[in-house]
Amino acid sequence: MKIDGRPHRTIWRDGDGRVAIIDQTRLPHRFETVVLEDVAAAAHAIAAMLVRGAPLIGATAAYGMALAMRDDPSDAALAAARARLMATRPTAVNLRWALDDMTQRLAALAPDRRAPAAFARAAAVCDEDVAINTAIGEHGLALVRQAPEARGDTVNILTHCNAGWLATVDMGTATAPIYLAHDAGIPVHVWVDETRPRNQGAALTAWELGRHGVPHTVIVDNAGGHLMQHGRVDLCFVGTDRTTATGDVCNKIGTYLKALAAHDNGVPFYVCLPSPTIDWSLRDGADIPIEERAGEEVSHVTGLTEDGELARVLLPPQASPVANPAFDVTPARLVSGLITERGIAPATAEGLAALFPEHARAA
Amino acid sequence: MKIDGRPHRTIWRDGDGRVAIIDQTRLPHRFETVVLEDVAAAAHAIAAMLVRGAPLIGATAAYGMALAMRDDPSDAALAAARARLMATRPTAVNLRWALDDMTQRLAALAPDRRAPAAFARAAAVCDEDVAINTAIGEHGLALVRQAPEARGDTVNILTHCNAGWLATVDMGTATAPIYLAHDAGIPVHVWVDETRPRNQGAALTAWELGRHGVPHTVIVDNAGGHLMQHGRVDLCFVGTDRTTATGDVCNKIGTYLKALAAHDNGVPFYVCLPSPTIDWSLRDGADIPIEERAGEEVSHVTGLTEDGELARVLLPPQASPVANPAFDVTPARLVSGLITERGIAPATAEGLAALFPEHARAA
Repeated sequence: MKIDGRPHRTIWRDGDGRVAIIDQTRLPHRFETVVLEDVAAAAHAIAAMLVRGAPLIGATAAYGMALAMRDDPSDAALAAARARLMATRPTAVNLRWALDDMTQRLAALAPDRRAPAAFARAAAVCDEDVAINTAIGEHGLALVRQAPEARGDTVNILTHCNAGWLATVDMGTATAPIYLAHDAGIPVHVWVDETRPRNQGAALTAWELGRHGVPHTVIVDNAGGHLMQHGRVDLCFVGTDRTTATGDVCNKIGTYLKALAAHDNGVPFYVCLPSPTIDWSLRDGADIPIEERAGEEVSHVTGLTEDGELARVLLPPQASPVANPAFDVTPARLVSGLITERGIAPATAEGLAALFPEHARAA
Repeated sequence: MKIDGRPHRTIWRDGDGRVAIIDQTRLPHRFETVVLEDVAAAAHAIAAMLVRGAPLIGATAAYGMALAMRDDPSDAALAAARARLMATRPTAVNLRWALDDMTQRLAALAPDRRAPAAFARAAAVCDEDVAINTAIGEHGLALVRQAPEARGDTVNILTHCNAGWLATVDMGTATAPIYLAHDAGIPVHVWVDETRPRNQGAALTAWELGRHGVPHTVIVDNAGGHLMQHGRVDLCFVGTDRTTATGDVCNKIGTYLKALAAHDNGVPFYVCLPSPTIDWSLRDGADIPIEERAGEEVSHVTGLTEDGELARVLLPPQASPVANPAFDVTPARLVSGLITERGIAPATAEGLAALFPEHARAA
């Protein structure tokens, strides 16, 4: 999407062919790009969340494999690169998908052909992601157009965390319908959940919507239920890190609470997901392992001081223990539909199987 | 309750008879007390939230009236003090209750008798609050004892915001059962919701529980639903700023989301309230005016830097608009019971009327 009028992606090859990313840990107050010099840098970028979001993690992992092959195209290096990248984030199913895809293709080639094939495949992974997100956006756009408020009034859409273009290669998943609606001239306004503890909503979603020119308002995670009670939310669009074959949705912690409120107030709650995010091996969301992240993500907050410096401050008493479960699971019964690149499926095993019969058969 | 072993209240008269409070805006990183020199200082303490929590606001307003009478016991000064204090916080029903009570008593007296009577009445308001909270604590303690986990295991209690002793004169409302259980040797552990935007959970509840020695863990507001899904919450105790005669509960923004999650997971959700918090004139929570507070409470966070200084940092992009509804309303249907000083009422008009027939008749 656009940054101040200029189209951008989250991962790209620069004029010298080097792989570059936006350091998302510095947003929204600093816009800095980083060159990934080798597979170690790619693994670090994923683990330290310079890049985040399931699709962008997958794309970065694909380029990480390509960088590894450029430096050493041996079978041993291929296996080591896969293992190193796989260990960075346990919850992201796209990571496994991208690494398995790359490994399978590259293992079949002679070592001297692996590096160029890997770079070509990584570029294709990126282009496929954009194509998938655009298709998700078009299916979601139909829902925005159907909202009664679209006839003359503003359509108010709530989103949680960042399933925006910054979480993908471009377009985003939950934001794809929003960008398409905005660019088509439909008046949309986005309620942006701050998304504690890492504040991806306040820091990333607000930044990317603002830079593209989409009207939005930042709210604390506590506020969404109240807004829904008062008819101020017309639609919810969220992303997912992993969705089961039965439609249970694992996403950023707090998504479940918003789904409960949407259900209680008759607000449609849609999950936007590229099909690689579906884990066909799982039938129950309760089986998804939930990443417990460092407590300092909760206890410490980074922001901009009045002097324009980035500073990190402690909120609770130094002595108080902190817990930090990073994701939760929204049961399928609370989900109005799953917006995939092939269309909108009911959040049921049958609904997903009808859209993806090849996977449903394999499972 | 105790601060490092020494009993304390939130408002008191010092050795020289001056009215003193804890500056709660400086907690948890600084413990500072402030002397209220006059009614203007009392109004400022309420408006700027040096004191907060419905019962403590009422007690501070009562002392504010006493300070006004000390300086000028005329009818005009009485009316002016009432108006000035009334304007500080629109949502708190205890504020109106305390001011009406003081005004009625003082107007009936000759001016030269007003100041001593006002100080005596303010002290009585404080003692009554402690007695009410102790009674709430005893009724709530019975629920903690009944929890299956109380037989040998730890009872896990979730609370939102600060309805602790810092929100009252002493004991707290939602914390009263917790302190009584802890002091009685029942193993309790408290999940402390951070409570964005003002972080009263992280800053105040965690501080007071820690200083009294109660085991607790700070979590982001997004986490409670996930913990309930996994059986890690046995009971919820929250406070309220205003409850209708029908049992709809107005409390800190986000309470409604926790009540939805508790209901969805079969976790008992209790509201602890002194009866002055009940607004007998209201039959529908939707009629409660919701205070919209300054956006900078959302956009800026204050905490402790690594250098040990208090610093305020900006989270979202400077250009992003922010909204800050401060309260929400939890419908009575989601409330397991209302714990009052007279016992536990079902959250219904009939339930409250049975415990408080004198008010129900008057309404």
